[in-house]
Amino acid sequence: MAATLAELAEMRYAALTVDAVARRAGVHKTTVYRRWKDKDGLIVDALAGQIATEIPIPDTGTVDGDLRLLARGLAAWLRGPSGAAVLAVMLSEAALAPGIAEARARIFHDRLRRAEPIVTRAVGRGELPAGIDPAAVVKAVAAPLYFRVLITAEPVDDEAADRSVAAALAAARNGGLG
Amino acid sequence: MAATLAELAEMRYAALTVDAVARRAGVHKTTVYRRWKDKDGLIVDALAGQIATEIPIPDTGTVDGDLRLLARGLAAWLRGPSGAAVLAVMLSEAALAPGIAEARARIFHDRLRRAEPIVTRAVGRGELPAGIDPAAVVKAVAAPLYFRVLITAEPVDDEAADRSVAAALAAARNGGLG
Repeated sequence: MAATLAELAEMRYAALTVDAVARRAGVHKTTVYRRWKDKDGLIVDALAGQIATEIPIPDTGTVDGDLRLLARGLAAWLRGPSGAAVLAVMLSEAALAPGIAEARARIFHDRLRRAEPIVTRAVGRGELPAGIDPAAVVKAVAAPLYFRVLITAEPVDDEAADRSVAAALAAARNGGLG
Repeated sequence: MAATLAELAEMRYAALTVDAVARRAGVHKTTVYRRWKDKDGLIVDALAGQIATEIPIPDTGTVDGDLRLLARGLAAWLRGPSGAAVLAVMLSEAALAPGIAEARARIFHDRLRRAEPIVTRAVGRGELPAGIDPAAVVKAVAAPLYFRVLITAEPVDDEAADRSVAAALAAARNGGLG
């Protein structure tokens, strides 16, 4: 996985080969092919690992605290080198490769689902109304940050993260998120 | 502009040439160069024109009605061929070209600003609190739709548009947007 990410960071997607990844990892390419059928499989797993490990899911005892840490962690990741690399690969020519567009959606869905306990715990504590859609709350926190990076090119800093959380919680408490 | 978009739809960005655009438009390439210094300038203007003309700014008399039409128009554009083509160019290798990343942000900011009167009219009618940030409301409507197209690959239909408006208005009325 580390060798795949290192190759991706140096090469564009089109130039990445399983041979080069194997060489960098110090194994024979048949060892790689035993587990992954092609370079797209390798890339998808490497990116999924990146996303899962780099943004921890907080448990501070309040929904404000949890979402704020989540949003700030996402913001730091998006403006850092890993986030930029992952987004560049996922939205570049790689997204045209069979499997990668589908994997992109699956990876982000997994990532969003892992954060949903923040919302279900908040409902349990009476901080958010029962019947709220946990996925909708997490997406409402994440969407404005991706929008800044990908569309408006506005800064993705702690202030942007906090604004995103304030808007999501205001919507959630006012019945705007299911 | 039409010739540029037609070339973009057929070619990838890297393969587009000013010569081919001029040929398709039935003019000599010096005519094109008199107004645009290179292909990136042509593309930026063609895309900006697309975005400005294809999503009308409604004035129905209520903020719910206006934002709903705005969001449904944006959703239709995003899931249609023009939206897909514009996003593909803006987020692909073209975004690495000097000027295009900057132009992308400028184009989307212009587009967002044109929709702000929806919010200022709503404040004037007493539908939204004074002191709200019009740009924040428009972005809150748009961000979840772009997030669906670019990240989660969820459908961008009328229902998604209406949900986006409901969340943005709930946040706006609850002090979550400035």
